[in-house]
Amino acid sequence: MAVRNIKLTIHYDGSGYHGWQAQPDRPTVQAELTGAIARLTGKQVIVNGASRTDAGVSALGQIANIKIDTPIPTKNIAKALTEILPDDIAVAEAVDVPEDFDAISSVKSKLYRYTIYTGPTPPVLQIRHCWHLPAKLDMADMDKAAKLLIGTKDFKSFASAADRRQSSVRTITRCDVKAESEWIYIDVEADGFLYNMVRNIVGTLVEIGRGRWSPEKMTDILHAKDRTTAGPIAPAEGLCLMRIDY
Amino acid sequence: MAVRNIKLTIHYDGSGYHGWQAQPDRPTVQAELTGAIARLTGKQVIVNGASRTDAGVSALGQIANIKIDTPIPTKNIAKALTEILPDDIAVAEAVDVPEDFDAISSVKSKLYRYTIYTGPTPPVLQIRHCWHLPAKLDMADMDKAAKLLIGTKDFKSFASAADRRQSSVRTITRCDVKAESEWIYIDVEADGFLYNMVRNIVGTLVEIGRGRWSPEKMTDILHAKDRTTAGPIAPAEGLCLMRIDY
Repeated sequence: MAVRNIKLTIHYDGSGYHGWQAQPDRPTVQAELTGAIARLTGKQVIVNGASRTDAGVSALGQIANIKIDTPIPTKNIAKALTEILPDDIAVAEAVDVPEDFDAISSVKSKLYRYTIYTGPTPPVLQIRHCWHLPAKLDMADMDKAAKLLIGTKDFKSFASAADRRQSSVRTITRCDVKAESEWIYIDVEADGFLYNMVRNIVGTLVEIGRGRWSPEKMTDILHAKDRTTAGPIAPAEGLCLMRIDY
Repeated sequence: MAVRNIKLTIHYDGSGYHGWQAQPDRPTVQAELTGAIARLTGKQVIVNGASRTDAGVSALGQIANIKIDTPIPTKNIAKALTEILPDDIAVAEAVDVPEDFDAISSVKSKLYRYTIYTGPTPPVLQIRHCWHLPAKLDMADMDKAAKLLIGTKDFKSFASAADRRQSSVRTITRCDVKAESEWIYIDVEADGFLYNMVRNIVGTLVEIGRGRWSPEKMTDILHAKDRTTAGPIAPAEGLCLMRIDY
């Protein structure tokens, strides 16, 4: 039997986990998946996840690939793993991919959604998956500022930790701010993201929405290439990895 | 200072609690509220809740009244209690009501919503607040059967525990089955509910939706006045108390 390369689409509620990446003595999504695959197949494999989401961040479109030699047909793997996994993690799809597919290096773009609830009462049923911010936010100003981020730019001002070896230039193809009654959704799509980039963008957009800064300040922040010029980081709970394209 | 009668509108995620009603050594919503009121006012009062929701059942419109003598203005009580309460319980509103208002005996009608998700992958972000039932359900048949429940009828077949002292006649004013993509919402409004009545109705509607029973069987079940003729009970997680009218 040959080793197959299998692409997994993974959904999880991040509120119960210390993020994606396995670490000693703490529950993580990657460790749960590695354990479930071992139980199902008897094989210990590397679950190569596209995004190392932080503690509290959820996903409805995380992608990982595994290289495995097992008699279990690929079409049965998603359901079988979901049955083994805890309730808050599910494998939505498992498909065979070419040998050279790599969930990290083959990425074309990723889409994240950030959710804010602006009503006065905490939304108890969604409280682990949103930022409860009971404030009046100017949607038009926020969307105007969001649009200034679109394009190929140096996003160093929105990176929590600078990596001197790597470029902080990324291409944002979409940045939309939209409201549905008291909910605000901020969708950001890019070819890649710096550490905490979406949460730092959201924190900045909220300062603008509150009227503390003008939308045009977004351009100044980009030019400054200095994290301290941008807004405070938004809480992890509001962030969800929605989709990865290859 | 006079004792005031204050009506509270309470929201909670029931997944972390052993139901509404206080009981020794187990977390309950009523006990959390009693504790929060004591911390805020220094007074131990009875939190008289309209519905004794079961373990796992949530609410976006539970009503309770408290009789209390406190210098804290009523308009500040909702926010102050919400700040003390855990994240998954919130007091949306506190208003003064006449002395004879009683959250239980003054009820005119209650509205419950039951949520089912029929897609193949467990909805990880809503898994504690729905019944994941990956099946094809006939919506037209379910709604047809639901409509047969409307009116003043003996709902004994849908009561999990019979109470011989009390009548099992209730008046259902609304029973709607509607779908939004892979979500199904069943809304039931009545002047009162027997024990587990909504969950037993939903379990029966699902048998009809699966095609195991015809919609007309609903009338036979009503006439039988026998719990064993109805469908199995639906899981608690899908149920939410939406509104109580007085």
